[in-house]
Amino acid sequence: MRYELYYWPGIQGRGEFVRLALEEAAADYVDVARMPEREGMGVAALMRLLEDTRAARPPFAPPILRAGKLVIAQTANILLFLGPRLGLVPKAEAARLWAHQLQLTIADLVAEAHDAHHPISGGLYYHEQKREAKRRAEDFRTKRVPKFLDYFEGVLERGPGGGRHMVGKALSYVDLSMFQVIAGLGYAFPRAMARVKRKISRLTALHQRVMERPRMAAYLASARRLPFSTEDVFRHYPELDG
Amino acid sequence: MRYELYYWPGIQGRGEFVRLALEEAAADYVDVARMPEREGMGVAALMRLLEDTRAARPPFAPPILRAGKLVIAQTANILLFLGPRLGLVPKAEAARLWAHQLQLTIADLVAEAHDAHHPISGGLYYHEQKREAKRRAEDFRTKRVPKFLDYFEGVLERGPGGGRHMVGKALSYVDLSMFQVIAGLGYAFPRAMARVKRKISRLTALHQRVMERPRMAAYLASARRLPFSTEDVFRHYPELDG
Repeated sequence: MRYELYYWPGIQGRGEFVRLALEEAAADYVDVARMPEREGMGVAALMRLLEDTRAARPPFAPPILRAGKLVIAQTANILLFLGPRLGLVPKAEAARLWAHQLQLTIADLVAEAHDAHHPISGGLYYHEQKREAKRRAEDFRTKRVPKFLDYFEGVLERGPGGGRHMVGKALSYVDLSMFQVIAGLGYAFPRAMARVKRKISRLTALHQRVMERPRMAAYLASARRLPFSTEDVFRHYPELDG
Repeated sequence: MRYELYYWPGIQGRGEFVRLALEEAAADYVDVARMPEREGMGVAALMRLLEDTRAARPPFAPPILRAGKLVIAQTANILLFLGPRLGLVPKAEAARLWAHQLQLTIADLVAEAHDAHHPISGGLYYHEQKREAKRRAEDFRTKRVPKFLDYFEGVLERGPGGGRHMVGKALSYVDLSMFQVIAGLGYAFPRAMARVKRKISRLTALHQRVMERPRMAAYLASARRLPFSTEDVFRHYPELDG
């Protein structure tokens, strides 16, 4: 099965959570919008998919995964589908629901990380909502991030993975997503993250272990891994970092 | 199977999406936090579940469903689990993923409806973020609500349900959730919703049909259905309605 991922080509964004799973599983996939338009791909192909007014199951927004006849959107839903197929989640239904529950909680944190710099509207520029962003980012940094990370640290601590895995006793897509969250927050809020580091030793170690996995290391060193930037979900604006 | 729902007792909130499914299926369930503490229930039971530091799969936030040994959180995840068990989603995997995808998009809309009145922090009062709320609510009303509802109207129009169902050819939990969204937005933003009504005739009709289903009508007329209020996710503040 060759998977087709459709996502904005210039950013990691929410698409990155899907990319990390595909890369770790060495899956056969095409990152469609980053391929040449002359080959029928590129952003034009993404736009065609988004604007197809005849689609019976239209996606609301990227990322979108095409798997044969299936067209699946919503990041966590894509991972729910891919998890068992890529061997990145335990087999039992209870464990899959738990993995998905964690992924949805990660999605909530990611949405809040976005709103820290865009508290008024995704349709306005950052400089048009800078004052509001300063207030929201302070709350995000000092209240929300500690609450979420304390929760995830507790999951690692209490789970059956001996502090090494979020779900079960082996690597899952949730570990990869957790890596991405720690990396993104570390980029966006280096000062705030330095302050909580002591309290999230298990998450920090998980981030490090994921980064050192051979396929992850190869991916992160490749041109396929886009850099963090101030066009992305996680953004570094020093004035929002306290 | 007797299901136990754990949710804040005073509001509809996100728990309502689960309640509607349980009610429509005439499922055997207990709304634990609304039952007496002297029977071991009430808010104290919810807090025990939230603060259980030994739980291997701790929930981050309500709603939480207990089904035998399973403890499941995240609204859309609960419905993913309940859907097939309550006969409220088609059997095929593709249709279930599609239903879940729509439910996650509804969850995104609900989170934005919340942030329309709390754009800075859920930990502050509305009056402490009123100025920011006015800006965010305007964007929500004039840009986001039309975008989401136009999308959902298109789903109804193009799907196999002949405009009557969001997923497949029979009632699903997504229809019930869509009813709740239309009801909530109508309560919170009556003027804005009157303005878009003409463009969402299928959604309006769906809302009406769900409301008239015998079990839904009985539920909505009962004391189990809490009223909308300005303590809830959907809030009516005239100054935010344009």
